[in-house]
Amino acid sequence: MMKLYYAKGTCALASHIALEEAGAEYSTVRVNFAASEQRSPEYLAINPKGRVPTLVTDKGTLTETPAMLAFIAQSFPKARLAPLDDPFRFAEIQAFNSYLCSTVHVAHAHRMRGTRWADDPAAIEAMKRKVPETVGACFDLIESKMPRGPWVMGDSYTICDPYLFTIAQWLEGDGVDPSRFPKVKAHRDRMSERAAVRKTVAEEMG
Amino acid sequence: MMKLYYAKGTCALASHIALEEAGAEYSTVRVNFAASEQRSPEYLAINPKGRVPTLVTDKGTLTETPAMLAFIAQSFPKARLAPLDDPFRFAEIQAFNSYLCSTVHVAHAHRMRGTRWADDPAAIEAMKRKVPETVGACFDLIESKMPRGPWVMGDSYTICDPYLFTIAQWLEGDGVDPSRFPKVKAHRDRMSERAAVRKTVAEEMG
Repeated sequence: MMKLYYAKGTCALASHIALEEAGAEYSTVRVNFAASEQRSPEYLAINPKGRVPTLVTDKGTLTETPAMLAFIAQSFPKARLAPLDDPFRFAEIQAFNSYLCSTVHVAHAHRMRGTRWADDPAAIEAMKRKVPETVGACFDLIESKMPRGPWVMGDSYTICDPYLFTIAQWLEGDGVDPSRFPKVKAHRDRMSERAAVRKTVAEEMG
Repeated sequence: MMKLYYAKGTCALASHIALEEAGAEYSTVRVNFAASEQRSPEYLAINPKGRVPTLVTDKGTLTETPAMLAFIAQSFPKARLAPLDDPFRFAEIQAFNSYLCSTVHVAHAHRMRGTRWADDPAAIEAMKRKVPETVGACFDLIESKMPRGPWVMGDSYTICDPYLFTIAQWLEGDGVDPSRFPKVKAHRDRMSERAAVRKTVAEEMG
């Protein structure tokens, strides 16, 4: 049985939802960021990056959301969470998720995690100030490329959907008005109605 | 035939090497960053992100290095650039590449591309100052997790190798001494001897 390490309000929610959608047997462990548990020797022995998510499987431990999402899709092919037999369509999904990870999440992280990239308090404040602009620009691009829906890739629900949903949860906190992005907002609302999303969000927020 | 858009000294080299290793038929187009060609209407019509690499295929256009590398591996299975039949091993490769993309490349980007995340010149200088520390910490982690080699994943050459090689090229420029990382340095030297690497590097630097 797989074990997912997550923290409240983090990108780990995407993998949590995907595990639930896949019908996987899994357990969860909450890592308390407020108590800096992610920097504890115990947790660093599991994930030396000191981040979440971490997925412990019977073959070993995985990190990095895009890799975990693709792993879940490939491990539970019956759930049809990705077009596994079409390298180009699969790559489109991976490109979307990689953009969320390396550009959108990174833009967002400059609000709360500026100390990763600068020590000067004034610089950290300068980073915070630009977050509404940079996150807004990312979502402008996403909105312009989104199909009519209902899902990120069109008719098929894929591993892009829980990831976009997760990161779109942060818009208000990042000072970006979701109503600027009608497709993203409708997607967020649609996701909120799914049983897997309700269950995982209830657990993580509980 | 595929067409790769690249710029000199960028992460596009990873996909360029992978195409060459795969034995793909492809052509290349150099995007002149010094002339800001990546912001031209012509290029933005191809890749609205205004970045490289872009891979134009007969099925459509792909961006994002980790997605392109996996696409190349899946499209040319005979080249054996990834363990395509083992979701866990494939996920390990994707996790490594995702880390390079979203953490290591991002740490490096704070030296030259600070304007992405702050407007204040002092903040941009503060980001630059921390790059040797952040990039160094990333490579400490990579070095500690690298197997004996010869390749990132051990005995098999995979899509992790051109990507690590590409990003490890930036160490000196980032103010990090490569001799701190003997395995990474040996890997870089080993990569430099491969025909595909010599050919692509000669083309990009020519």
